[in-house]
Amino acid sequence: MLEDASPDAAERAAPYDFDQATAVAPGADGSGYGGSVDPGWTIGGRPNGGYLLALATRAALVEAGRPDPLAVSAHYLSPPAPGPVGVAVTLLRAGRSVSVLRATLGQDGAACLEALVSAGQLDGVAEPLWRADRPPELPPPDECVPGQSEMENGVQVPILDHIDVRLDPATAGWALGRPARRAEMRGWVRFHDGRPPDSLALLQAVDALPPVSFELGVLSWAPTLELTAYVRRPPAPGWLACVARGRMLQGGWFDEEAEVWDERGALVAQSRQLAGARAPQPSESPPPSGDG
Amino acid sequence: MLEDASPDAAERAAPYDFDQATAVAPGADGSGYGGSVDPGWTIGGRPNGGYLLALATRAALVEAGRPDPLAVSAHYLSPPAPGPVGVAVTLLRAGRSVSVLRATLGQDGAACLEALVSAGQLDGVAEPLWRADRPPELPPPDECVPGQSEMENGVQVPILDHIDVRLDPATAGWALGRPARRAEMRGWVRFHDGRPPDSLALLQAVDALPPVSFELGVLSWAPTLELTAYVRRPPAPGWLACVARGRMLQGGWFDEEAEVWDERGALVAQSRQLAGARAPQPSESPPPSGDG
Repeated sequence: MLEDASPDAAERAAPYDFDQATAVAPGADGSGYGGSVDPGWTIGGRPNGGYLLALATRAALVEAGRPDPLAVSAHYLSPPAPGPVGVAVTLLRAGRSVSVLRATLGQDGAACLEALVSAGQLDGVAEPLWRADRPPELPPPDECVPGQSEMENGVQVPILDHIDVRLDPATAGWALGRPARRAEMRGWVRFHDGRPPDSLALLQAVDALPPVSFELGVLSWAPTLELTAYVRRPPAPGWLACVARGRMLQGGWFDEEAEVWDERGALVAQSRQLAGARAPQPSESPPPSGDG
Repeated sequence: MLEDASPDAAERAAPYDFDQATAVAPGADGSGYGGSVDPGWTIGGRPNGGYLLALATRAALVEAGRPDPLAVSAHYLSPPAPGPVGVAVTLLRAGRSVSVLRATLGQDGAACLEALVSAGQLDGVAEPLWRADRPPELPPPDECVPGQSEMENGVQVPILDHIDVRLDPATAGWALGRPARRAEMRGWVRFHDGRPPDSLALLQAVDALPPVSFELGVLSWAPTLELTAYVRRPPAPGWLACVARGRMLQGGWFDEEAEVWDERGALVAQSRQLAGARAPQPSESPPPSGDG
């Protein structure tokens, strides 16, 4: 019956990849949520940091009964393997318009990621009272470099089968062995399956470009220690323009600030992360997984 | 006896203000740490966000047995009153070089702030492999505008009796009713009592300037929802040059990115916060305390 084709029914019939990969269900014993790390959202076998953040945050939003993450801060403890995970959620404060929750994503009894989530409802109507910048100037997507799900060095990047990334050629020199030696990445991002972006997807978008360390000529795995994202406005449908810049690589750590703009030219999300970057050692294989 | 004047003895004899105001002691029952919110580190009766962050982080560092906060992310739940507080600390991960802890600062059974702390030891020797910027250009401290511990509108800012803030006149127009309408603050920061800066003090420094919203003409209390700070290098003794910029004020929220540089021109800390900015309502008194 057509009149029964509610959004719920439509979602069950053909869920988008991202919604499936971040799905959570209340635990049978009433404590926390269960989910699964999808092997399709990994890079070299490790789940993408933005993906894990979205998975943990989704559980927090369900618990809060609020639609949007306003500010999410996560510290990464150890990368989970693809497969079942649990998300323990604790309500820290229930305010009139903002709730704050703690979400701990764990696997086999070990905590993998802990996030603090301030959840509320974004104002999609009010125009900014002030803003500093215009959107970045990027070549059109079809003049950019599409992300490949297998890198030159053989590393598998299946997440790029789900996320359509188009790098500005000016920041894609690393892939040709000619890094610009400037910690900056620019590119377009959207889901391959047509899922429109929303506030949860922006947590994925802030970590969708290659690490800015690549353009410094450091092509090793860049494990995230901390990532904080602010979601500022509901994104319009279409491409997201992403820009990430770092300020310093020192003592094995670099910072990366990302901004996400939607197709109507609105700043919709900001993030910053601190990640490790070590020159690969000849004896090291597989790539380092952090500080151990 | 002069030969007994060890650093410890000297500290006991004349502790610096900041060390006294952030002092923590293990709880009698072995659970967590006790401290006290010092009324001298407040603005209009509310503790400064950077001060609270330093207090909670200090307990985490003691628990970890590590000297430096590398990345600290805090969500502010409700402002504590001056007086006793407890800090519950949980070790989430003990790595080879980094430990991650959760610190919850509470008062009278209510959580006031929860922070995630990645703690380790800063590399004070290695020069940056790459950095984007030069230090900001500021007029010398004696050509800047000294912070006053009583604002024109009568609000008491006793924290400025402890922190010596010298605002660049170019970003001090708000105090004269002539805000620049650009979300930027620049200034020098140091402790009045000569305490040299260290990694803990940088958590204070990132939140020492007036909120950038003041330069947008919004002089109301700017409650912090989230603040993340990265400490990048041990600071040299002397003045700290601080620059804070915002990107957007929309829907009652603004972001503020701060950088702290030391006297030798090294980038020593970065932070970002999301804070509320609401035009004062005639009926509202005292100033709003967040989203309620």
